[in-house]
Amino acid sequence: MLLYNSAVSGNCYKVRLLLAQLGLPYEKVDVSVVDRSGRKELLGELNPGLRVPTLVLDDGRPLAESNAILWYFGDGTQYVPEDAYERAQTLQWMFFEQYSHEPYIAVARFWLAYSGKPEEFAVRRDGVMKGGYAALAAMERHLEKRAFLVGETYTIADISLYAYTHVAHEGEFDLDAYPAIRAWLDRVASQPGHVTIDA
Amino acid sequence: MLLYNSAVSGNCYKVRLLLAQLGLPYEKVDVSVVDRSGRKELLGELNPGLRVPTLVLDDGRPLAESNAILWYFGDGTQYVPEDAYERAQTLQWMFFEQYSHEPYIAVARFWLAYSGKPEEFAVRRDGVMKGGYAALAAMERHLEKRAFLVGETYTIADISLYAYTHVAHEGEFDLDAYPAIRAWLDRVASQPGHVTIDA
Repeated sequence: MLLYNSAVSGNCYKVRLLLAQLGLPYEKVDVSVVDRSGRKELLGELNPGLRVPTLVLDDGRPLAESNAILWYFGDGTQYVPEDAYERAQTLQWMFFEQYSHEPYIAVARFWLAYSGKPEEFAVRRDGVMKGGYAALAAMERHLEKRAFLVGETYTIADISLYAYTHVAHEGEFDLDAYPAIRAWLDRVASQPGHVTIDA
Repeated sequence: MLLYNSAVSGNCYKVRLLLAQLGLPYEKVDVSVVDRSGRKELLGELNPGLRVPTLVLDDGRPLAESNAILWYFGDGTQYVPEDAYERAQTLQWMFFEQYSHEPYIAVARFWLAYSGKPEEFAVRRDGVMKGGYAALAAMERHLEKRAFLVGETYTIADISLYAYTHVAHEGEFDLDAYPAIRAWLDRVASQPGHVTIDA
């Protein structure tokens, strides 16, 4: 398999983390998330969204969207529940991640730590920080009573939300007021086969 | 079942359309998408994202995120493929919808047609229109060679992307240059059991 990858992208890290925990081998092609020229030539036939991660299976078929890739490899393993309601909850948290979490927490991190132009973020900063803290508050309320996001075990929903939450400080989000999230981050990082984002 | 609903929300329409095609009965509670006061009291225990649609199953368990709800009811029916790769592609298009389509096409429509304050949209307009047309271009390229988004039949991926694409003109998106999308919209609307957004 071939993974079009970025070392700093949390979306790509999700895929690397699950593939490591499943023990599945793959090749990587690193793609810049700052210089986006050439994306259409590189990914146009593989991913309509022109984003990384994009994965090419051994038979040449492409698959895109980090959370769809997690589902493809996770389903049928311990990382995706069998119960229909818990499966839907797993998807619920992954859609929450892409709609209510990533566009704020990943975006702040990108602009402040990786874009090379942090000053351009100023005009959007208030709205992005507000959205990010709203997502963290939703996670905190949920995790106050639970060890993991869905059911009682670690699933791809945890992988999905761990990816950008554990580097939220790079976007200047302060997790001091979110003890349930901090304990959950520790639980996720202590799962068998865990690899770090810079592994 | 009880659906916390908005008559104008495309996300809620997705759920109403699938439930109609499956012949599943439910009650509705209409929630404003303009006046968001009281959301936490109404939905706080049911949906960490405090958004509609939120569905409460007959046994009282809640489910949120439009595309997760589609998966819960669609899986095991003709509307979700059985093949593992096609299932992942279905999710791929639904994650594309929430990340690369809805934040542009639904947002332009909301501000211009429903917010009551269309002038406040001016500062964001250029970026939102550009993002929306990028999503439409990705769909057009894909649909040029296909009748439906995944496989050869109508799936919940089509329901998901139909919801806001068919009302994109309310956000002042012009579909004249997208003939494959327009033909696909007609195919979706002619499916058995189809209901309109204002049904």
